[in-house]
Amino acid sequence: MSTAKNDRFIRALLRQPVDRTPVWIMRQAGRYLPEYREVREQAGDFMTLCSTPELACEVTLQPLRRFALDAAILFSDILTIPDAMGLGLYFTEGEGPKFKTTISTASDINKLPVPDPADKLRYVTDAVSLIRKELNGQVPLIGFAGSPWTLATYMVEGGSSKSFSKIKALLFEDPASAHLLMNKLADSVAVYLNAQIEAGAQAVMVFDSWGGALTTPHYRDFSLSPMQRIVDQLTREKDGQKIPVILFTKGGGLWLDDIANTGCDAVGLDWSVDIHLARKQIGDKVALQGNMDPAIMATNSEVIKQEVSRILADFGHGSGHVFNLGHGITPNITPENVAALVDAVHEISEQYHS
Amino acid sequence: MSTAKNDRFIRALLRQPVDRTPVWIMRQAGRYLPEYREVREQAGDFMTLCSTPELACEVTLQPLRRFALDAAILFSDILTIPDAMGLGLYFTEGEGPKFKTTISTASDINKLPVPDPADKLRYVTDAVSLIRKELNGQVPLIGFAGSPWTLATYMVEGGSSKSFSKIKALLFEDPASAHLLMNKLADSVAVYLNAQIEAGAQAVMVFDSWGGALTTPHYRDFSLSPMQRIVDQLTREKDGQKIPVILFTKGGGLWLDDIANTGCDAVGLDWSVDIHLARKQIGDKVALQGNMDPAIMATNSEVIKQEVSRILADFGHGSGHVFNLGHGITPNITPENVAALVDAVHEISEQYHS
Repeated sequence: MSTAKNDRFIRALLRQPVDRTPVWIMRQAGRYLPEYREVREQAGDFMTLCSTPELACEVTLQPLRRFALDAAILFSDILTIPDAMGLGLYFTEGEGPKFKTTISTASDINKLPVPDPADKLRYVTDAVSLIRKELNGQVPLIGFAGSPWTLATYMVEGGSSKSFSKIKALLFEDPASAHLLMNKLADSVAVYLNAQIEAGAQAVMVFDSWGGALTTPHYRDFSLSPMQRIVDQLTREKDGQKIPVILFTKGGGLWLDDIANTGCDAVGLDWSVDIHLARKQIGDKVALQGNMDPAIMATNSEVIKQEVSRILADFGHGSGHVFNLGHGITPNITPENVAALVDAVHEISEQYHS
Repeated sequence: MSTAKNDRFIRALLRQPVDRTPVWIMRQAGRYLPEYREVREQAGDFMTLCSTPELACEVTLQPLRRFALDAAILFSDILTIPDAMGLGLYFTEGEGPKFKTTISTASDINKLPVPDPADKLRYVTDAVSLIRKELNGQVPLIGFAGSPWTLATYMVEGGSSKSFSKIKALLFEDPASAHLLMNKLADSVAVYLNAQIEAGAQAVMVFDSWGGALTTPHYRDFSLSPMQRIVDQLTREKDGQKIPVILFTKGGGLWLDDIANTGCDAVGLDWSVDIHLARKQIGDKVALQGNMDPAIMATNSEVIKQEVSRILADFGHGSGHVFNLGHGITPNITPENVAALVDAVHEISEQYHS
């Protein structure tokens, strides 16, 4: 496999010079695209879409046909691992992901397998291989997984949660079992991401959607430390190419130093973070990815351009920035506004890379 | 009116020596208490409970009869001001607060009155006077209001929101109108809190529940700056007694310096903040209030004691700390666990005040 023709994304993650700031969008393959909604409807349910490599490949490529994005991201779900552990992932309209079986005791945790990616997660690596082939080197492909803490919240709560009362009770009342769970999930994520890399993923990202719900000591023990365990096990180079690792904790702005010190290549920032300060704080160690407020995408192209300008100026001159939203794009956004964002990043950023 | 017999709370806010760390709990008058649920049922709807001084007084005093709390807080709602502006506040089971009328245009904002607290908010100041009388100097009484940004989110969205898309569109597309709205709300909050102080409130707190949803520049412009405008207008001393002001932005851990620089007396911390670092950062300017994860209240007395110990040790020796949760107590908590919390704070903190 050759390297990508457009390698801005990988170069920015490695803080190597680029001509323009690369941009991709979390959930860029998603419901805001009419062609996505069409495939989604054909597939019937969401898990069929995820688990059919041809369909996952198709929706992965859809946004690249419309917009000058600098990376593709595997279409999948963060909860594939607990599903492969046997918990039975399903989706209900308007309520988000749920599990048929939840875990609560040390015995439940002991029984959980570390899924073999060649077995129950084969549909993911097959999708990665197919997407790499279809991309034909156009842009790099990002593989991803949910963070151990984030996966654990769904596995213990049974679905989305506001208060995380069950999983937090486990952390406080039985920390040994909680550690066992996080270590098992970290090892599962590591072999899963390595299988994605083996199949062709050229960068990987760990999504810690719910790390921001923790106290500082619990974030370190139960979210960051398992992510460190993942980083330590990942394949960091393949066929002479570096495979950058991005860690993203939503609501993790207080812990940027800790995240940067894991040895990851890049840190995802949500929109509450001042990217200028973040660069001063950790920019000598890692690249930064982010961090436009997704709500801006619902305004208009003028506002989008202004905010792109502000964020690019706040980051400043030189490489080490991958432009993105601070969280996933929402279904109500028009493709026109996405085009305005992508084009604005490329046009306005040129001055910062001379 | 005399000062309180137990003045630990006020002294800690002013960073004056205390014998033990004072403690109160956000939403301490609330659904976790069976006697509250009884009065709530008698009242019929929530607004009747808020707007009947005798009932508001009764539920304010209920937790003080059970627990050795160091402060009382007026029983009311953060949304009384927009209700007094004529938007028609109502509550639906399980969906939170809603408004009959929402605002969206410059013309809507221009028409909003600054409510006279002696008129439509008289029920609040009457409740404050009655509570002060009934408290009979036992502990100080806290008055409060919602922050302008937080009030504006409900007024524009019409209720609770996840994405804040309407109010954020206003900030981006018509910042002049947004500033006008925030200034009008700031002035309304200031006269409202001053009326509460006049009626007997001995400290006041501004709840900025949704400031954490903003970017750093928007937080400064649309949440912090209106709170600064409030602080600048508040009565800070009455009858020779200082009236401390507490500002609390949930999710505001990245902006502690900015909040402390408003000239407030204390900063509320949610549980994501490391209180040890926060004290090093702003402890020479302000007192700190917080910051136990409310989820811990659902565990058991041993875990609660451990976490109280950790937070007290993290803050360290000396005054300037008011113990509290990092957000409101939830309805599923047992009164026994609340007693365990309050007693643990008093017992364990003694060593830090010798």
